[in-house]
Amino acid sequence: MIKAGIVGATGYAGVELVRLLQSHPEVTVAGISSVSYEGKSISEVYPNLYKICDDTLESEDALIDKCDIIFASLPHGLSEKLAKKCVEKGVKLIDLGADFRLDSAEEYTKWYGKTYEEKDLHEKSVYLIPELMRAEYKGQPVIGNPGCYPTSIALGLAPLMKSGLVKDDGIVIDSKSGVTGAGRGLADNTHYPNCNEAFSPYKVAAHRHTPEIEQTLSKLADKKVNVTFVPHLLPVNRGIISTIYASLSSVVGAEELHKLYSDFYAREKFVRVLPLGKAANLRDVKFSNYCDISVHADEHTGRAIIVSAIDNMVKGAAGQAIQNMNIMFSLKEDCGLDFIPPAF
Amino acid sequence: MIKAGIVGATGYAGVELVRLLQSHPEVTVAGISSVSYEGKSISEVYPNLYKICDDTLESEDALIDKCDIIFASLPHGLSEKLAKKCVEKGVKLIDLGADFRLDSAEEYTKWYGKTYEEKDLHEKSVYLIPELMRAEYKGQPVIGNPGCYPTSIALGLAPLMKSGLVKDDGIVIDSKSGVTGAGRGLADNTHYPNCNEAFSPYKVAAHRHTPEIEQTLSKLADKKVNVTFVPHLLPVNRGIISTIYASLSSVVGAEELHKLYSDFYAREKFVRVLPLGKAANLRDVKFSNYCDISVHADEHTGRAIIVSAIDNMVKGAAGQAIQNMNIMFSLKEDCGLDFIPPAF
Amino acid sequence: MIKAGIVGATGYAGVELVRLLQSHPEVTVAGISSVSYEGKSISEVYPNLYKICDDTLESEDALIDKCDIIFASLPHGLSEKLAKKCVEKGVKLIDLGADFRLDSAEEYTKWYGKTYEEKDLHEKSVYLIPELMRAEYKGQPVIGNPGCYPTSIALGLAPLMKSGLVKDDGIVIDSKSGVTGAGRGLADNTHYPNCNEAFSPYKVAAHRHTPEIEQTLSKLADKKVNVTFVPHLLPVNRGIISTIYASLSSVVGAEELHKLYSDFYAREKFVRVLPLGKAANLRDVKFSNYCDISVHADEHTGRAIIVSAIDNMVKGAAGQAIQNMNIMFSLKEDCGLDFIPPAF
Amino acid sequence: MIKAGIVGATGYAGVELVRLLQSHPEVTVAGISSVSYEGKSISEVYPNLYKICDDTLESEDALIDKCDIIFASLPHGLSEKLAKKCVEKGVKLIDLGADFRLDSAEEYTKWYGKTYEEKDLHEKSVYLIPELMRAEYKGQPVIGNPGCYPTSIALGLAPLMKSGLVKDDGIVIDSKSGVTGAGRGLADNTHYPNCNEAFSPYKVAAHRHTPEIEQTLSKLADKKVNVTFVPHLLPVNRGIISTIYASLSSVVGAEELHKLYSDFYAREKFVRVLPLGKAANLRDVKFSNYCDISVHADEHTGRAIIVSAIDNMVKGAAGQAIQNMNIMFSLKEDCGLDFIPPAF
Repeated sequence: MIKAGIVGATGYAGVELVRLLQSHPEVTVAGISSVSYEGKSISEVYPNLYKICDDTLESEDALIDKCDIIFASLPHGLSEKLAKKCVEKGVKLIDLGADFRLDSAEEYTKWYGKTYEEKDLHEKSVYLIPELMRAEYKGQPVIGNPGCYPTSIALGLAPLMKSGLVKDDGIVIDSKSGVTGAGRGLADNTHYPNCNEAFSPYKVAAHRHTPEIEQTLSKLADKKVNVTFVPHLLPVNRGIISTIYASLSSVVGAEELHKLYSDFYAREKFVRVLPLGKAANLRDVKFSNYCDISVHADEHTGRAIIVSAIDNMVKGAAGQAIQNMNIMFSLKEDCGLDFIPPAF
Repeated sequence: MIKAGIVGATGYAGVELVRLLQSHPEVTVAGISSVSYEGKSISEVYPNLYKICDDTLESEDALIDKCDIIFASLPHGLSEKLAKKCVEKGVKLIDLGADFRLDSAEEYTKWYGKTYEEKDLHEKSVYLIPELMRAEYKGQPVIGNPGCYPTSIALGLAPLMKSGLVKDDGIVIDSKSGVTGAGRGLADNTHYPNCNEAFSPYKVAAHRHTPEIEQTLSKLADKKVNVTFVPHLLPVNRGIISTIYASLSSVVGAEELHKLYSDFYAREKFVRVLPLGKAANLRDVKFSNYCDISVHADEHTGRAIIVSAIDNMVKGAAGQAIQNMNIMFSLKEDCGLDFIPPAF
Repeated sequence: MIKAGIVGATGYAGVELVRLLQSHPEVTVAGISSVSYEGKSISEVYPNLYKICDDTLESEDALIDKCDIIFASLPHGLSEKLAKKCVEKGVKLIDLGADFRLDSAEEYTKWYGKTYEEKDLHEKSVYLIPELMRAEYKGQPVIGNPGCYPTSIALGLAPLMKSGLVKDDGIVIDSKSGVTGAGRGLADNTHYPNCNEAFSPYKVAAHRHTPEIEQTLSKLADKKVNVTFVPHLLPVNRGIISTIYASLSSVVGAEELHKLYSDFYAREKFVRVLPLGKAANLRDVKFSNYCDISVHADEHTGRAIIVSAIDNMVKGAAGQAIQNMNIMFSLKEDCGLDFIPPAF
Repeated sequence: MIKAGIVGATGYAGVELVRLLQSHPEVTVAGISSVSYEGKSISEVYPNLYKICDDTLESEDALIDKCDIIFASLPHGLSEKLAKKCVEKGVKLIDLGADFRLDSAEEYTKWYGKTYEEKDLHEKSVYLIPELMRAEYKGQPVIGNPGCYPTSIALGLAPLMKSGLVKDDGIVIDSKSGVTGAGRGLADNTHYPNCNEAFSPYKVAAHRHTPEIEQTLSKLADKKVNVTFVPHLLPVNRGIISTIYASLSSVVGAEELHKLYSDFYAREKFVRVLPLGKAANLRDVKFSNYCDISVHADEHTGRAIIVSAIDNMVKGAAGQAIQNMNIMFSLKEDCGLDFIPPAF
């Protein structure tokens, strides 16, 4: 059994990892840590886990000593140090934060206001959306786990980017995220009466996931791609929908688009290209590792419209991290990830 | 006092008119009608009105005989006949349905599958978003009240369309509507467990409001404008947000855009251009006749981003209809419409 | 015009007062104050008020000097000092907090952990649920405005308590409150993902409103009444429903109960006793000053079941405070309170 | 592998069974049926199942011929005939409807308006809440699966009923159910704008689960028990909370109550008695087979207050049915039921 540790276990992605890993057949949760709640049982913080996982929250260092792999779910700027300690001790690391996502140190500094201190560590890390990049995994000890928005968007746009059909500067991405995306920290905009019966964009064309999105799309298209990206806060607990508009350089009908997508994802279990005429709904992927994609054409303006839906906490965070762990340990990629989305 | 009648009073727009007109200082609700509930009290159907308005639902014809103005909230295809009767008897009509919105009989037939039977009636009618078109009211007996999506979009785009800054085919509109927009009729997609904790687009690039949107934008731009328009069903009761992306033909900064909008709407009470840096939220316009607009620039892709929020049942339906009635009767435009949006 | 000031204007009850008083025909909001936001415009804190009320938040003292009446919405323990200042300057005070609700200084200390410092002030104050106690207003300069739960419960039980039909210790009250009842302060249990799709009681049989409830019921019954009271947090913004179970000393059928209630409230505009067979729903009183009451009998166990619904922020706070102000100033009791609950 | 069939697979309990059984290690779903959708794929009706279970909906008879056990989720009055066919062919049946719950044919007729046609079948059936009645399973071919409210209430009251501490007629049950409890059928009260931001009791003291509740409590107490039972519709998708008030014949403190409950359920995996001071929350049992119980004392009125929370679709329907199937087939009772409630 693989011994896994979770650093930042009382954050939302952390506790989701605790939950999902309970049913992974090849993994034991060997330890969990939290700075704020060290010494407490996690089920005091999350009573859903009472009598299921009453493990005590330990220090980060205690974990490293007894684990084969660490999942880190920390605010940006804290993962490098942790990574260094892990790599030195031969422990693998999957970072669910932002510190190992961007290739460019400049972009990281521009968007996150910090600097890469350990440049060689970044050489040893890889950013991995499994369906698009699994071939790039070559034993690196550190994986940068993708952000939630970038996952939904990269999966939604990959076939089109590869096709060469998209006009330069022709992409608009309108994303909507459930409130868990904002995390466990209390804030005015996630106070119930402020976000219930409310809806608004935030960080309009200024969200930190923008460089990550453009990095992936540029690689797929093999040229620099800029996008307009606007996220919105959606009054639901879970899920992200990205409605993606792509201006095409030639007329492409809905059937042709649908075939492009169906062929591209024909062998991918976790990406479901919906039948033509259906629209992706975050309801249908909640609590699962699936990404549902629906494909639409607006021929009178020459745009393809792609709708991509994931559970932000599963495929957008903890589930994809486990998928990446499965790759790291040469397990079947869907091992421990057979969660079926409920109908309601 | 103006004697007003409401045809289709048990629909959502109808009952909102009943509510709003109770506090209009110049209007008496002289009669209400409903085909499905004739003979019943409206407070049996809507218990919120118990002991406030227990009026009995009558026939359409009974109403015409005792009213100065009829508000019609009917499925499309039924308003022409009603309009004919009203006009013959010298009664004014404001149609909240789709039958007097489109200038082009061909477009109407294409999108609604019916034909204009009474062409001269359409000559006598006018489509009116007060802030943009009040000068076009010249005593016509019939007003076509705008749709909810088109209202939020036309107000959101008018300053830009008039400016000539928008590239051809450069507009993407991503709209999200509360569930009351789908009306009172029962349907699978508005069954609570289906739309709570759910989110999805519908009628992608195929919604009937598209020709109405393009008609208004084309007039404003003084050339044919095509748009990509995708509506989504939002799990809240009320409100519409349209996030509008417009590719610009030259570089325009956020301050300049903001000045364009602030100047354009400087004298409009019901359109609030938010301070730069804020984002419009449907929470802040609910239960009111306000349209909140926030202006953003994405300079790295050359797009303006406009966020426009209204209450779909007030400014998007009943409130705007009353505003139009005020124009018809030469009252102050905001008469009876001083509803302050609650904080929660 | 009466010059009103609101102390604690950025709390939820405070900002609701700001909103409701805008449309009161006899009142001008002469000043608003807030310790946390002094010097800021209230519309920076509550953007729903932008361009409607952009007043600057001042100090408490500045308000007293220019107002005829102060509404105070403060944490308990802070109102006595304010009251003293007001009374000395001849300014009336309506306290929406807990400091002038309990007759018994011992009970106040027991439940709130503070003491009455100004005993004579309490002599000059009166606790007022208008429908039940308006006769007790005899020019007192200070009114203790009732709590939200106690209002819904006292109105729901008054006819039964007066009837003498209720068995000793025979009352169970199961109340459910919308999240605004917890106020504007951030807390774990009002963080959106914690209370959306959740439901739980809190302070089971230990809520501070218990002595206030028992005080009123005891006066109505003319003997000491104890109740079991359990509040629950309901995932909606507004509204309180109290489902009240009363064991009866003799068999009383539903019709008889209904007549008792209908007669008792026959002249009360803001209390609607629903037709037999209907159940009160908080949906139907939202945004209004109404209290809806439905009456049911469970003859096989000998209990009456009363369901009482109010908007916690209107009839349960700001609306009732205005109703009390109307009494203080000899205005019609419903003056400025004609808010019609919307259907949705 | 046990071959299971689901009759009524497109109802809410049916589709939940389809989902839960996918991950049961000893069961294959051999067939699913639906009268309304025969011939269609279930994933056309429930797109969450797309590419996971695209099975075609067959006729009831086709299922019986190939299954070892049938789960029936049908409107009342239809299960007897199905049971007869199953029993004749040696196929086991678990009925999730109401037809095998009540011992008394008179009560069934009184509450459901139908009659038991096959009296001997009822002799061969058993009603089973596993934690309380598993000893009563002696190979009967038909199990009547308990209702959702009765499950939450029986588990919540069993220790007290057995203790003999509860006064006659001393029980009040205030239950709140998520909207899935009302099923898949469209209705006015489950139309989104009607039940969002709304809350109301329904069938006050007249719900059909009342005789089932009283039957179980009477057996536990070994005397006839009457209760006052009021259900409410809660604006969440899933979950039931029952707040139960029991007047006690002697003074019992919270610690003593807590010990009574902890001891009673010490060996039950699926019943979690929460630490004293906590309150059960339906959030913490959602999507799982757990029943959380919190115990409280109101000594000043002599009542115990028990809060019992389940997921109405799992422990209240499909999960408990699987637990009962496990008993029927001598599997471990928790087999295939290790669903961990998510934190959000």
